Amino acid sequence: MSVITVIGSGVMGSAMSFPAGANGHTVRLVGTKLDREIISHARETGFHLTLDRKLPEGVEYYQLEELSEALDGVDLIICGVSSFGVEWFANEILHLLPKDVPVLSVTKGMFVRPDGTLYSYPSYFSSVAPGMDFCAVGGPCTSYELADLDNTCVAFCGNNLDSLEFMKKLLETDFYHINLTTDVEGLECAVAIKNVYALAVSLAIGLSQKDGDIIHYNSQAALFGQSIREMRKILDLFGYDANNIVYGAGDLYVTVFGGRTRKIGTLLGKGYGFEAAMQELQGITLESVVIAERISKAILTFITSCKTIKKDFPLLLHIYDIISNNVKVDVPWKAFES
Amino acid sequence: MSVITVIGSGVMGSAMSFPAGANGHTVRLVGTKLDREIISHARETGFHLTLDRKLPEGVEYYQLEELSEALDGVDLIICGVSSFGVEWFANEILHLLPKDVPVLSVTKGMFVRPDGTLYSYPSYFSSVAPGMDFCAVGGPCTSYELADLDNTCVAFCGNNLDSLEFMKKLLETDFYHINLTTDVEGLECAVAIKNVYALAVSLAIGLSQKDGDIIHYNSQAALFGQSIREMRKILDLFGYDANNIVYGAGDLYVTVFGGRTRKIGTLLGKGYGFEAAMQELQGITLESVVIAERISKAILTFITSCKTIKKDFPLLLHIYDIISNNVKVDVPWKAFES
Repeated sequence: MSVITVIGSGVMGSAMSFPAGANGHTVRLVGTKLDREIISHARETGFHLTLDRKLPEGVEYYQLEELSEALDGVDLIICGVSSFGVEWFANEILHLLPKDVPVLSVTKGMFVRPDGTLYSYPSYFSSVAPGMDFCAVGGPCTSYELADLDNTCVAFCGNNLDSLEFMKKLLETDFYHINLTTDVEGLECAVAIKNVYALAVSLAIGLSQKDGDIIHYNSQAALFGQSIREMRKILDLFGYDANNIVYGAGDLYVTVFGGRTRKIGTLLGKGYGFEAAMQELQGITLESVVIAERISKAILTFITSCKTIKKDFPLLLHIYDIISNNVKVDVPWKAFES
Repeated sequence: MSVITVIGSGVMGSAMSFPAGANGHTVRLVGTKLDREIISHARETGFHLTLDRKLPEGVEYYQLEELSEALDGVDLIICGVSSFGVEWFANEILHLLPKDVPVLSVTKGMFVRPDGTLYSYPSYFSSVAPGMDFCAVGGPCTSYELADLDNTCVAFCGNNLDSLEFMKKLLETDFYHINLTTDVEGLECAVAIKNVYALAVSLAIGLSQKDGDIIHYNSQAALFGQSIREMRKILDLFGYDANNIVYGAGDLYVTVFGGRTRKIGTLLGKGYGFEAAMQELQGITLESVVIAERISKAILTFITSCKTIKKDFPLLLHIYDIISNNVKVDVPWKAFES
């Protein structure tokens, strides 16, 4: 059995204790400064306050100042911070980690270069700590359902296939199924852009609820299809393998239904302005909206710089306008036609 | 204004009266022998018994023996029969139609050659009545929601772009959005295979409901992603344009949520055998199941004949086994991994 240390005890990092625990590993969950209450409560009760579930028996809990103890004899480190904590993790934590232990990041999103191209968190971590082995998880997985042991198919990406095989051996269970790929940037791009499109698809939920408590699926499916069309074009534009659409599509599906993005998309579809919708949902972490804004802006920058025509991405453009320019929802249906 | 005659007054054929009627055309709805009551009831009340909605004002109703009257001065014929009526339409109706009027088919499915390759209904109709112009509708559209004027994006396919443009001009509205493509076989294949995969994705609904009234989306998304993976491989195997996955994905999405396939998939996931599930749902037209069986069998025949390995299509194989060999649901999760 191995020792797996999860740094960052938000919902996704903590949910990783389910596959890890099911395999009998020692799981050490380390809170960030923001997680102090989560850790102290879980230490006393075994119950995770934001995941709203009991964690597996045997999970060990550590406050941040106990990190070095939590890293003693560790075999695998999981970075479980949110996208808001990625730079903190790189600057404050990386230099404290053993250099020869691989790091698996569950954090969603990408960073952006000035020309609008994207780079993954593993790439970013490698630039801060060269020589360490950084991998990431992509694909459809909500933390709550992983904790409920629902069958979940993800992909682990990294540069080193041996490392990926090692992680798969540690974490694969009869409910957590793991694909492996060395196409880090392609996978991370496919699952990052779904934040933009999950917002887009859920607009249709609000639009159909405007006139009563009805949910229609033709319009959702129309936006879903257009999302797949634009996501394929984005993968192509950046030169990534088209096969990554499989993970993008699955991740889009689960985010529309299981994610928090659905709530904001629905409000926008009902006619709320962006500011008003964010106001209504205050208190809910809208990490996905921040990522959606960052990614949509980046792609538009890149499109402009390489002179590709914007009209190929009408839905992306509309979401960007909604988030950044406070434009009201007016889905450009006719622009989808070819 | 033009005259549009719909032959076959099932739910989808009849729902086409909404975009046609919205554009002010004369719409003539002709029932088959099976639609006698639908037509006589609608003629008296304007209400469609199986679509369960009032049809637009001004729609004219015809019994089958009044067909020649319904074809007088017609500009566009819509074939609205179910897949069970396609051969009847070809053999009994085609020779009665004016040769110079294009025919748009809303019927879903494809026929199969002995080697397992597929061919579209427009191809089949052309073989029966050479020289006539046959087109078809593909993409995500349930009849009920089209009748509710929900925004709907479809694709019309045919060999003649002028004809397609003409049909688009007649039927496009502010809620019915039409793409055009001359890739008839590729589009029809993408939207036919979704019948297999909609059944597959909805297994997860039943599986999660086994242990209570909970719906999980990780497992649905895992099956959705695997469906997209296999659908892309099938398009590739038959040599069709990969872009058709856009319509296949949208159609899969709407069928999982808005279609009847969901009901049978859910029962199977809950543990019913195939026969028992069909028994439970008797009275519901399970056209999609017949198509799913036909298409999955064809693809397996083709795969075998061209020596492609079956292990690339584990979900297809499982659905075929469930329908044809009365195998109980046991999703081959590990076979999805790569």
